[in-house]
Amino acid sequence: MPTPITQRHNANAIRALAMDAVQKANSGHPGAPMGMADIAEVLWRKFLKHNPKDPKWLNRDRFVLSNGHGSMLHYALLHLSGYDVSIDDLKNFRQLHSKTPSHPEYGYTAGIETTTGPLGQGIANAVGFAIAEKTLANQFNRDGHEIINHNTYCFLGDGCLMEGISHEACSLAGTLELGKLVVYYDDNGISIDGEVEGWFSDDTQKRFEAYGWQVQTVDGHDSEAIGKATENALNESKKPSLIICKTVIGAGSPNKQGKEDCHGAPLGNDEIALTRETLGWTAEPFVIPQEIYDAWNGVAKGEVVQGNWQAEFDSYQKAYPELAKELLRRMNADLPADFEQKAQDFIKQCQANPENIASRKASQNAINALQPLLPELLGGSADLAGSNLTWFKNAKALENDPAGNYIHYGVREFGMTAIANGIALHGGFIPYVATFLMFMEYARNAVRMSALMKQRVINVYTHDSIGLGEDGPTHQPVEQLASLRATPNLHTWRPCDTVESMVAWVESLKAKTTPSALIFSRQNLPHQNRDDAQVANIAKGGYVLAKEQADLQAIIIATGSEVELAMNAYQELSGQGVGVRVVSMPCAEVFVSQDSAYRESVLPSNVRSRVAVEASHVDYWYKFVGLDGKVIGMTTFGESAPAKDLFNHFGITSEAVVSVVKSLI
Amino acid sequence: MPTPITQRHNANAIRALAMDAVQKANSGHPGAPMGMADIAEVLWRKFLKHNPKDPKWLNRDRFVLSNGHGSMLHYALLHLSGYDVSIDDLKNFRQLHSKTPSHPEYGYTAGIETTTGPLGQGIANAVGFAIAEKTLANQFNRDGHEIINHNTYCFLGDGCLMEGISHEACSLAGTLELGKLVVYYDDNGISIDGEVEGWFSDDTQKRFEAYGWQVQTVDGHDSEAIGKATENALNESKKPSLIICKTVIGAGSPNKQGKEDCHGAPLGNDEIALTRETLGWTAEPFVIPQEIYDAWNGVAKGEVVQGNWQAEFDSYQKAYPELAKELLRRMNADLPADFEQKAQDFIKQCQANPENIASRKASQNAINALQPLLPELLGGSADLAGSNLTWFKNAKALENDPAGNYIHYGVREFGMTAIANGIALHGGFIPYVATFLMFMEYARNAVRMSALMKQRVINVYTHDSIGLGEDGPTHQPVEQLASLRATPNLHTWRPCDTVESMVAWVESLKAKTTPSALIFSRQNLPHQNRDDAQVANIAKGGYVLAKEQADLQAIIIATGSEVELAMNAYQELSGQGVGVRVVSMPCAEVFVSQDSAYRESVLPSNVRSRVAVEASHVDYWYKFVGLDGKVIGMTTFGESAPAKDLFNHFGITSEAVVSVVKSLI
Repeated sequence: MPTPITQRHNANAIRALAMDAVQKANSGHPGAPMGMADIAEVLWRKFLKHNPKDPKWLNRDRFVLSNGHGSMLHYALLHLSGYDVSIDDLKNFRQLHSKTPSHPEYGYTAGIETTTGPLGQGIANAVGFAIAEKTLANQFNRDGHEIINHNTYCFLGDGCLMEGISHEACSLAGTLELGKLVVYYDDNGISIDGEVEGWFSDDTQKRFEAYGWQVQTVDGHDSEAIGKATENALNESKKPSLIICKTVIGAGSPNKQGKEDCHGAPLGNDEIALTRETLGWTAEPFVIPQEIYDAWNGVAKGEVVQGNWQAEFDSYQKAYPELAKELLRRMNADLPADFEQKAQDFIKQCQANPENIASRKASQNAINALQPLLPELLGGSADLAGSNLTWFKNAKALENDPAGNYIHYGVREFGMTAIANGIALHGGFIPYVATFLMFMEYARNAVRMSALMKQRVINVYTHDSIGLGEDGPTHQPVEQLASLRATPNLHTWRPCDTVESMVAWVESLKAKTTPSALIFSRQNLPHQNRDDAQVANIAKGGYVLAKEQADLQAIIIATGSEVELAMNAYQELSGQGVGVRVVSMPCAEVFVSQDSAYRESVLPSNVRSRVAVEASHVDYWYKFVGLDGKVIGMTTFGESAPAKDLFNHFGITSEAVVSVVKSLI
Repeated sequence: MPTPITQRHNANAIRALAMDAVQKANSGHPGAPMGMADIAEVLWRKFLKHNPKDPKWLNRDRFVLSNGHGSMLHYALLHLSGYDVSIDDLKNFRQLHSKTPSHPEYGYTAGIETTTGPLGQGIANAVGFAIAEKTLANQFNRDGHEIINHNTYCFLGDGCLMEGISHEACSLAGTLELGKLVVYYDDNGISIDGEVEGWFSDDTQKRFEAYGWQVQTVDGHDSEAIGKATENALNESKKPSLIICKTVIGAGSPNKQGKEDCHGAPLGNDEIALTRETLGWTAEPFVIPQEIYDAWNGVAKGEVVQGNWQAEFDSYQKAYPELAKELLRRMNADLPADFEQKAQDFIKQCQANPENIASRKASQNAINALQPLLPELLGGSADLAGSNLTWFKNAKALENDPAGNYIHYGVREFGMTAIANGIALHGGFIPYVATFLMFMEYARNAVRMSALMKQRVINVYTHDSIGLGEDGPTHQPVEQLASLRATPNLHTWRPCDTVESMVAWVESLKAKTTPSALIFSRQNLPHQNRDDAQVANIAKGGYVLAKEQADLQAIIIATGSEVELAMNAYQELSGQGVGVRVVSMPCAEVFVSQDSAYRESVLPSNVRSRVAVEASHVDYWYKFVGLDGKVIGMTTFGESAPAKDLFNHFGITSEAVVSVVKSLI
């Protein structure tokens, strides 16, 4: 070991741990950790403000590894810095129930700020972290009290930069002047298919300058240059910074460095031995010399940094007790104490004041009612504020007011949703985002990531079916609800009127570890009558909206705009003496999670004459109607025409419901 | 009317038709057609090589309106130029069964090359058109015979440029040196939410220079400047061209131009009257003076242009009869005459030569077998060639050989898929693309667009379940098959061995108007025994793989890797005297399209003890097992661990199948 220990030698600890853990797991990605080790060493040992003993300290710097396949880099950093990640944890890399899954998974490991792996989303999360930091600072800091003041650091590779989402997120980051975002690009010229020049020849410096970023290019193995560039980045307060680091993938491996072979496969024992030799790293696998541990350990420094902040916070708390309390409440993701009562009052008011309006308008009414209770709401839409109706009375756009509560995301659905994930992960906000239901598809994997990470992100999706009319099949959802409903830990609400819309909002806000998709109509929907018990049952996801008037023969299940058709059919059938009930099912996932007695009370298992009606793909509903029931819905794409013409054209009418019920009983 | 007719006055014909049609429909987007009218006039009257009387002429220039909401621009151009789009068609804008749906829909209207509307995909389609043109030219042109030689023109707006897919597609276009691609950017500074500067401040000139494009900026209402810039673009043979046109949205409307109000709503009758006055346009709504028609009509010119090409083609045909025949075959999307016989032989060979290999490997074997029959195959992967196993023996990457047959798409799933749509639409190729099944989600809306446009694009999706093992939940599909299967006009095949894999490829290649998703495993799968009838039935999507050995009591339905579990359970249960059959269901959508007698022969409706097993979300399968059956599959996200551990952890085992079958009978 060199004396004194060099930065390179500290970095070699990462290289050794990465190649050893990947070898032991017999799978994984050594290339990125070995290539970025020198950058990581500078950032983590010199700049990162964090406390390994309190990974949730609210003013810590956030670090995101957007090239998440390089997870061993992050795990090595956590281990070496003194987080709760042991050598045994590293030995369990990629094993069931370990703290060291293949990709960094939020919630599995202390110090992991977000789940990465799906390329490009980490950088978008990082943009979300930086937006949250800047907005929270502007909302809570006071003269002489910089309570919120931290940086967001992100590592990424060429995969992230090829992905379109990097364009969306980084373009917006430039416009929003996120000066505290610092990104390091692992520019190693290699992707899985080989040397990238055949498929990736961007001038990345120029590209990011076009976004309004500060861009520097350095040798990614020159610790001094990395340090200097980082200082420059921190000195730039308006522009986000990109530091392009020219690196060698798998640096240190004499035969595999600089080649795609080392990207995603173990080096092999022979090459590891040669690498040890080349690096002058004599320690055994999974052994780190104490001096190296000492050099890396961030605990003492972290306690000082956090201690200093705590003293500042105490003084802030004394000066602004209410603000401090509110900040802690929001960072703790708690709703205000009076939220539940007031929310239930709003729901009752909706029931008591019938309105026949589009559910997207009902959604806007809900936002206008609830937002004054919840200053943590941070709204936005992908350039459809006036269509999604996400703008609200007290809305202030961030581009005009940095302490505001609304983001004009531009036409960037995927970036928007992944940014919202970052905002939720940062804490202090409940983000909601919006687009047409169809364009959820552009953002689809970020919706999934919020569900996987258990983040309370509320997705407002309007224009929910052929009911949107003229805009035609490119805009008319058919299969989108099936996709959302099959997503684990996601609640998809499709309300039928103002009351169900308010409940959907309230339940989504209360779902601390579950994102929601709120599905709203473009067209007007009639108000439905309910007694108090029925109103209370909406929150159970499905309930009897209209009770049979004779012995129960058949059940009509409907959601959203089709509840009106079901109710019309119910009137007609009941008039004819048929014993039929209508079940409104605004959130099937929540209904399914009720106890079996409740489910049986709504859908008695001996009643097999069941018809589901929803202007969406039929397949989903067989789960509820079985082989003996029928589904009225879509099996083809839509068409461009007025909505009324389309419902007739596709046979989604109350007449069809009546006729199908009669054919079954 | 000015004499002689000015270019502006010709452009005003577009403005008048656009505002009148939108007004009559009482919905639509007048802003973009009015803002881009002058650009369109220059391009269509001066440069575009096309023949309105033969919209399918194979060497026509392709024109793509990526900002598809401005469809009335395109419809007006088609009408004025002499295509089969009448004034009555324009009056039927946005009505059911009209030729003029809200957004341009491929197949509905002569002269519409692709369906646009979902922003950013049109430019990616255009990149696909340009790749197809360049590759086809390199494959078929011979010295002195420039049979394939046309340009691809694309209009787009700031919405397209904000979308991430524009980054993916345009970056690759620069790398692939698509010099015949010319793009006009409607830089009007307005999006739906208002003036874009608050959310879109890119230096677009610099951004596209970073991609290696030629970029020019002009006044989009200066016809001479637009013409000059177009000439410059056509003179640049290597770099794609972006012409940034500074325009006024809704140009001509005195009170609404330059404002977001005119983006997506009718101007109103009063404003239309004022606009007529401002423009000096005196004709009544939907009336075009004959002189204007004469100025626009492209029929005579088109017949000359196509006639000249036909003469060239005749001489080419004389010199290279086989090449000419092959070109026409490919442009006609016909498979070679001997394809069916040879394909069936390959299938039989697979059955006769048992191999226990991963289905992704079986897929590669299928490509290697079939590609020599099909030079029109144009493969590719989003930087996962070695994992998706899409590379083949005769593969030549386009970056090395412009007459090649393989595209290194880079990490650009969405761009890749939309580019493939453009390649398919251009004709002459059958594109296939690949990524992990999970990252289908990044490309999801382009997959849908291929189904909507009835394009034969083959999507190879490998690493199809928790069976991929260590990479963990971010990479393990759960709900993705539900989304694909609910997509109208898409065939999703999940084969269980080499035989089904070959059938899946063959059926996908034969499906001229249906895209396919081929779902393959990372892990090895055992070969299954079949007689000839069973082999023939694979193409029916579902069939009895193992017949009951006693009176039929229960049915196990399985796909892909879970067929092995089903067969193990079958052995166990049959040994215990249980009358159970195994139905392999590689393509449920194709199975459902069979006649009822066949379906009944596979799944007798009186047998209600049914178990479906698939390592994917359970919900889809209730369609086949009903309320009395059970589904063994996933309801949560996966985990990072070796595959075997995961199947045990999630209870997807043959023991579970045995136990569930017994609980049902």
